Order: sequence, then C-alpha cells, then structure tokens
Amino acid sequence: MLKKEVIAETFKNLQDTITSGLEKADGKKFNEDIWQRAEGGGGRTRTIEGTVIEKGGVAFSAVYGKTPEKILQALQLPPSDFYATGVSLVLHPANPWVPIIHMNIRYFEMSNGTKWFGGGIDLTPHYISKQEASIFHQQLKNVCDKYYSDYYSKFKQWADDYFFIKHRNETRGIGGIFFDRLSEDSDFTIEDRFEFVKSVGNAFLPIYLPLIDSNRNKAFDEKEKQWQYLRRGRYVEFNLVYDKGTKFGLDTNGRTESILMSLPPTAQWKYDFNVEKGSPEEATLSLLKKDINWIGLA
Amino acid sequence: MLKKEVIAETFKNLQDTITSGLEKADGKKFNEDIWQRAEGGGGRTRTIEGTVIEKGGVAFSAVYGKTPEKILQALQLPPSDFYATGVSLVLHPANPWVPIIHMNIRYFEMSNGTKWFGGGIDLTPHYISKQEASIFHQQLKNVCDKYYSDYYSKFKQWADDYFFIKHRNETRGIGGIFFDRLSEDSDFTIEDRFEFVKSVGNAFLPIYLPLIDSNRNKAFDEKEKQWQYLRRGRYVEFNLVYDKGTKFGLDTNGRTESILMSLPPTAQWKYDFNVEKGSPEEATLSLLKKDINWIGLA
Repeated sequence: MLKKEVIAETFKNLQDTITSGLEKADGKKFNEDIWQRAEGGGGRTRTIEGTVIEKGGVAFSAVYGKTPEKILQALQLPPSDFYATGVSLVLHPANPWVPIIHMNIRYFEMSNGTKWFGGGIDLTPHYISKQEASIFHQQLKNVCDKYYSDYYSKFKQWADDYFFIKHRNETRGIGGIFFDRLSEDSDFTIEDRFEFVKSVGNAFLPIYLPLIDSNRNKAFDEKEKQWQYLRRGRYVEFNLVYDKGTKFGLDTNGRTESILMSLPPTAQWKYDFNVEKGSPEEATLSLLKKDINWIGLA
Repeated sequence: MLKKEVIAETFKNLQDTITSGLEKADGKKFNEDIWQRAEGGGGRTRTIEGTVIEKGGVAFSAVYGKTPEKILQALQLPPSDFYATGVSLVLHPANPWVPIIHMNIRYFEMSNGTKWFGGGIDLTPHYISKQEASIFHQQLKNVCDKYYSDYYSKFKQWADDYFFIKHRNETRGIGGIFFDRLSEDSDFTIEDRFEFVKSVGNAFLPIYLPLIDSNRNKAFDEKEKQWQYLRRGRYVEFNLVYDKGTKFGLDTNGRTESILMSLPPTAQWKYDFNVEKGSPEEATLSLLKKDINWIGLA
C-alpha cells in the first residue's frame, strides 16, 4: 500500500534534485528556510536570487492536522483530518528571452479515505518561440503518453482553461498540463497516479535546463526588458486574482512568504499599453489564446 | 428631489477641478480616454505620467442598464435596472516621501428605490510622518464633523477594517475614512448624504496638494526607492486580493484599464524581506496597524 510518508520523501528528494540542477545552471545557491506549522507539519522553502534566475523559489511542504473549514465547506464534508504534501516552483529569469516556468506536484488525503494527486507544468515566455513551444508541449505529451493516451489532450485543455486571465482575455502563457483530484478509479490505481506525478516532477529539469541554455546569453534591449516587466505584471494579476492555490493558501492562513514566492522581482503596469503593429510583442500577444495546437505549430 | 443627472454632473465637475489642480502642481497634463459601455453609459478616464505623479488616474463614470446578476445575488433581489456614477482616483508619486493617495465617491440607485452613496479618502505613505498623519486625519474629521459627530469615528474604523492586508497582518497605509451604502434614514435625507459626499470630494485637493508641496523635492536614496517599490507591491496585493471594487469590476466585465489604473508603475517583491532594527522602514511598519488614534499621535 502506498504510504504518505513515501510520497513526501519522494517529493523532498525531487526538491533536492531540482535545486541542485538549477544551482549548477545558475552558478548561485538557493537559500533554505525550514519552517514548522503550528497545527502540524512544515516545509523547506528554497529561494534564489541568481544570475540566470533573477528570483525563484522551489518549495517542499508536508502538512497535516484538522481539515481546514474552507475545504470541508467546499466538499460538503464533516470534520476530518488531512495530510498534504507537495513540491511547487516558480522561476523568474533575468533575461526576457528565458521563459518563466511553474511546476507543482501535490498529494492530498483525508481520514475519510479521499486520496488525490494534482499538479502540472506550464510555461510563460515573455516572447513566444513557436519552436520552443512545440518542443515543450511535445515533451509534456511524451510524459503523458507513457501513462494514458488521453492524459495530454485532457490536461492540456485543463491548463488552457486554468491559466486564463479572464479580465485580459489572455492566457498566462503557452499553458502546458494541469490536473487535479486524480484518484484511484477503474483505470488507475493510486500507485499509477503516483508514478505519473513522479514522471511530471522528473520532467522538469530536462524541459527547463535547455530553455535556460539556449536563451540565457541572448542580447536584449530596453524595449524587451520593459515588455518583460509588463508580462510579469500579468503574472501577478493571474496569481493574485485567479490562482486557486494562492487564494486558498491566503484564505487558510498559509505561510504567506512561501505562497507569494511566485511573485516576480519587478513588475510594471502602464495604463492602456498597446503593442506596435507587426512587432514581436504583438506576435506573442496573438498567441496568448486557448486551444492552440502547439505541437503542430512549429 | 435629488436627480441622478445632477449627481453625475457634480461628479464630472469635480473630476475637472481635481485634474486641473493636479496638473498645476505637476506641470504635466492628463490624457483623457472617453469610453462607452455597450449596455449603457460610459466614462472619462484621465491618466497622467507626470513629474511628481509618476502614474495616476482620475476617473469619472456614469453607467446604467440591467443590474448585474452578481449584485442581485448578493442582495437577494429580483431583476431591476441600476444607475451608478462616481469619481475615483489613485496617485502613485515618483518621490517616496510623497504618499500614495486614493479617493472615491460614488452613487448607486436601483429601480426598486434603493439609493446609496459611498466613498472615502485614504493615504498610503511609504514612510509615515506622524505629523502629516495627524493633520490628514484632522482634515477628514473636520469634513465629517460638519455633518454628524459620529461620522469620523465610524468611517475611520471602517477604513481601518477595509484597507487591511490580512495575509500580511498590515493595514495598507494610515487609513482615512471609508463609507458605503449611506442611504436616507431617520437622521439624514438623501440630499444630506449628497452634501457630505461632495465635501469629501472637495476636501481632496486641500488635503493632497500640501503633501505634494512639502515633500516633492526631498532627497531620497536607493534604499528608500527600494522600500517604495516594496510598499507598492503591498498596494498591488491589497487591490488584487481584497479590494471589493476591483473584484466586482473584474467579475462583471467592467473596463479593465479603468479598474486597474490603480496599480503602480513599478512594484517589487523580495522573498521574506525584513526591515532593519531601528530603521525608518521599521518605524513605518510598526504603524501599519488598525485602531491608531492618528490625531492624538503627533
């Protein structure tokens, strides 16, 4: 039987693998904050102010106790105990040609027998390269296809719908995969779900390190830096207005610094900013849409 | 009988007075965007990228039509028509010694007979001067006292409770006054409420222009600029996570650029930033609390 302690240990090891891989690429080290939760459990929040990664965080946590009232209400359940563990990361690169990336894998169980995995990887390029977008989605499809032929199309759609900034009518980036509440069912055991989630976590470095490598030294000018700041502003808007994890964390007195480690180092807003016709910024904006077949685009 | 058209015209004139007063102080001019709302009404959004005011907006709107579903749900009312008009402003100064200010006055009526005024003024200094805070609150108290002896204490409390960043356990700034749903009752006619709201609007320039004058030329260094960027980050957090007007506007397909004109030109986030002991930043942070008697403090 799959034990929650094994899941947590696996996630913790994944955090180690990811932070050491990123340190090798960046040259700078992560700082570690070890914290405890009064009601049970705690975490290791690792953050970096690096050379390539201007501001980033890779967090592990494993928390437990009485299920928060908000969850019980949402699920219309009586009081219970819960256990939740996960790895979550957001990296804001210094160079506007390197995309912002977000990855999360998580496990949640309750004393009533509920066991769920969730997570995903999504990419937010300041400037979209169709070729990189195609490779990124192909890599995610490869991970998904190993487990189930429907996973990629379903989870790609889920990401399109989830990472959507309604008031801008824009997606946050080029999406990726997103999934939640994957439980045991007639097709999958909980062990199958765990294997899939591990593969998603393990896919992170092989996906992101090449994106760093090929873009970290590309030259950029003031206009491109300005566009990066504005796109980061949109990232802030998504995370503070729509992201369910952020809202839930803030609502349930989560650890604010760990929740908001996703915010960029510097962001800007301009009133009614409009991209120039025919510019690379316009080309990117025209691709911040749902339902793009990225794999077939390049 | 008080006509909605008179209220709207008064608000429009107030926008003119305020923008011309600010232009005189700043030296630069506002840009004006005139917009129409498909379902009825429209507005004039005026924004500035000035010398003293790095980024600011002063908006007037008067909109009408079918009452949005979200309002009907919240009030548990059957379908009706509505009319809403208001002036709203947020100014982000360039110099960290000049405080951020927000002012709003608004009127809302429905075909079921509901008539409400709302609004307020609140101040968000990057660095709190107790003397300026005391004068600011005294000025608001003077406006309130002309109408009702309980107004200031009640509306000051309301601002403390409203402009609170729960996940930081900080107020957004030093508060001010905030009020909503002021309707006709046994003490006040709707005309009385209108007179009060006009006085709040008229108080804006005499309150803010001296704050510009006395601080606009104060020298500042990198550390103070950095702190300003971090405080603006908090302003973003409040507006996107808690501000009811912002949430409601985004939820009901309001005009995004007018709603988000409140966001700062540049904001920053640092993981787990801590102020130095004995620093002016620490002194300010220690005053970002509810229930401070600002008038008695200086």
